[in-house]
Amino acid sequence: MSAREPIEYDDATPEVRAVFDDIKRTRQIKDVNNFWKYLAHDPVTLRRTWESIREVMTPGALDALTKEMVYLAVSVTNGCGYCIASHNAAARKAGMTDKMFGELMAVVGMANETNRLANGYRVPIDPGFGR
Amino acid sequence: MSAREPIEYDDATPEVRAVFDDIKRTRQIKDVNNFWKYLAHDPVTLRRTWESIREVMTPGALDALTKEMVYLAVSVTNGCGYCIASHNAAARKAGMTDKMFGELMAVVGMANETNRLANGYRVPIDPGFGR
Amino acid sequence: MSAREPIEYDDATPEVRAVFDDIKRTRQIKDVNNFWKYLAHDPVTLRRTWESIREVMTPGALDALTKEMVYLAVSVTNGCGYCIASHNAAARKAGMTDKMFGELMAVVGMANETNRLANGYRVPIDPGFGR
Amino acid sequence: MSAREPIEYDDATPEVRAVFDDIKRTRQIKDVNNFWKYLAHDPVTLRRTWESIREVMTPGALDALTKEMVYLAVSVTNGCGYCIASHNAAARKAGMTDKMFGELMAVVGMANETNRLANGYRVPIDPGFGR
Amino acid sequence: MSAREPIEYDDATPEVRAVFDDIKRTRQIKDVNNFWKYLAHDPVTLRRTWESIREVMTPGALDALTKEMVYLAVSVTNGCGYCIASHNAAARKAGMTDKMFGELMAVVGMANETNRLANGYRVPIDPGFGR
Amino acid sequence: MSAREPIEYDDATPEVRAVFDDIKRTRQIKDVNNFWKYLAHDPVTLRRTWESIREVMTPGALDALTKEMVYLAVSVTNGCGYCIASHNAAARKAGMTDKMFGELMAVVGMANETNRLANGYRVPIDPGFGR
Repeated sequence: MSAREPIEYDDATPEVRAVFDDIKRTRQIKDVNNFWKYLAHDPVTLRRTWESIREVMTPGALDALTKEMVYLAVSVTNGCGYCIASHNAAARKAGMTDKMFGELMAVVGMANETNRLANGYRVPIDPGFGR
Repeated sequence: MSAREPIEYDDATPEVRAVFDDIKRTRQIKDVNNFWKYLAHDPVTLRRTWESIREVMTPGALDALTKEMVYLAVSVTNGCGYCIASHNAAARKAGMTDKMFGELMAVVGMANETNRLANGYRVPIDPGFGR
Repeated sequence: MSAREPIEYDDATPEVRAVFDDIKRTRQIKDVNNFWKYLAHDPVTLRRTWESIREVMTPGALDALTKEMVYLAVSVTNGCGYCIASHNAAARKAGMTDKMFGELMAVVGMANETNRLANGYRVPIDPGFGR
Repeated sequence: MSAREPIEYDDATPEVRAVFDDIKRTRQIKDVNNFWKYLAHDPVTLRRTWESIREVMTPGALDALTKEMVYLAVSVTNGCGYCIASHNAAARKAGMTDKMFGELMAVVGMANETNRLANGYRVPIDPGFGR
Repeated sequence: MSAREPIEYDDATPEVRAVFDDIKRTRQIKDVNNFWKYLAHDPVTLRRTWESIREVMTPGALDALTKEMVYLAVSVTNGCGYCIASHNAAARKAGMTDKMFGELMAVVGMANETNRLANGYRVPIDPGFGR
Repeated sequence: MSAREPIEYDDATPEVRAVFDDIKRTRQIKDVNNFWKYLAHDPVTLRRTWESIREVMTPGALDALTKEMVYLAVSVTNGCGYCIASHNAAARKAGMTDKMFGELMAVVGMANETNRLANGYRVPIDPGFGR
């Protein structure tokens, strides 16, 4: 089967179905996103990626919304079209308002700008920045 | 004066001093970071960048700590050494604990990984992602 | 002629046709990819890029498949949609199986993740890494 | 303990030591790299990253040398200084010769160049590229 | 109103209209680009971004064409599809010929290539480069 | 000889010396930069890269200064420390003043910012952008 086609639940092996089931249970959704249906072409990567995501995205010292917004910020910086769409949706679901989205994009934009100003001016690190 | 030397307050023009004074007042610090001392070679960019940063980083729908952590996430993704050091310091000052830092880096790492998995598998955007 | 249209063989200058002919002969294909048809708007860049690619991609200490997979890994990291599609096709032609593709993406994903962990934790280079 | 200091084996918790021990056993080395000593500040990320790396880097459809060279190619593309040094060392250990290194860099360089030519000329994907 | 829909002049608030009017007046165009119609969802970012762009892109020590070509070079390097299309259009309007475009892409391509060769060979900075 | 040491003229093979001689003649300099001394570990890449650079950087529709500034803009965007230092030096030699440098960095900064705003707001390309 070609990697250019999603693997639907009904066509999946028991190993893949077990991951799909866990995603659906954890996120309380009816069907998994295309991302998982494509990764399913490599069941080992599917399982590892899901288990890593589940561990990393569980609320801890940072809440779910903050984590989703950081995910979106990275995806926007990298210009990953799929990830921008999917993590925008996830951040909205976690409570990101239009106003939060606007401020998030403003910070991401400024950070990308000043990262290059610091590069271009070859600014040496201040001794006081510490750890 | 070469762009490879910082401009200290005592050597700065009144225009540059006015920006330095506003940075120090706003952030309640005794001296500005190297970033500003290098940008001071171009007073127009210094002023515009500071005014933009001040507007963007003021707490609003997102609080100061969230904004600093997003700034750090972008800087880490771009690999800007100066910005990683300076925004790590700023995020710590705004309240980022070791535990928050660890979770932030975990999210940034996973986002950079899955951005490439989505690229490589050429995953099409799910119709349901909406706006 | 606009750079937004491909230049087909029949419309090409002798200079461009000579490059197209060499690509077709070297790769044993009937027609060149869009990449070359667009580069043909600048015959100097077309020729230099083809000659460089031909020299670089010729099997040597690394075989053709390894080189195509590295090309794909870079394109996935940069998020170049065209290059991901074309070098995936080229790597498949050179022998990349579904299983190899899966492992390749897994390595590319992990490398992009740990690159950022190393950036974020500002890990100093071990003295033992040598040359 | 600050994230800016490595955690040595003697100062590590049993949880961290268990990961260090597994790294040393798997790679047959006497001490782990700085990368792991810094990640040790977040034992959860340390464990997950190591287990992922171990799974991904185990020879399978791709051999150990190919995987290390791909890792190096990604690190060079991203400009991660630490990762370039560490994965150059790892690739050398896995058998990368000077000649292989030279060809690898040549491919990485060309891929980064043609990625941008494809972007700039906005080349549409050829229908024939398939999956 | 969703961020996934452009805000047209007739639906805009007076605050947004004032920015749109200034863009149209400054650039002597009948309607603003989609970029501004989407940014209009966040009037503060819309205004700040426009004022910054207007200040930065005004001819000074560098003329308008040079600035637009640099903008295009950065957008091509980052792989931003929208920005490549819009700044290609802007550079054409400012006088970029097909020949200039070809040479610009050639430089952008080579810079992206040699940036990685310098990374990969870990070339130390020459003492003589000065400021 | 390790790739971590520069190859000096006196230790170079005739093939490498011929390239070094051509660089020195073309640029009217007494010694070549470290970049070339490291690339000399792979004489094929050394020769091809130099011939490509010589062809691309020769003044044509774009003058030498514009080309060097574009090279610097790309290097700053990618965060390549060596390339920023070397192409800053080259641009200065070609006539870049402090004022030009300041405006160049301002454009590079804004482009990196608005690239991400366009990504984040997922702005669709205007029909009127044409070729």
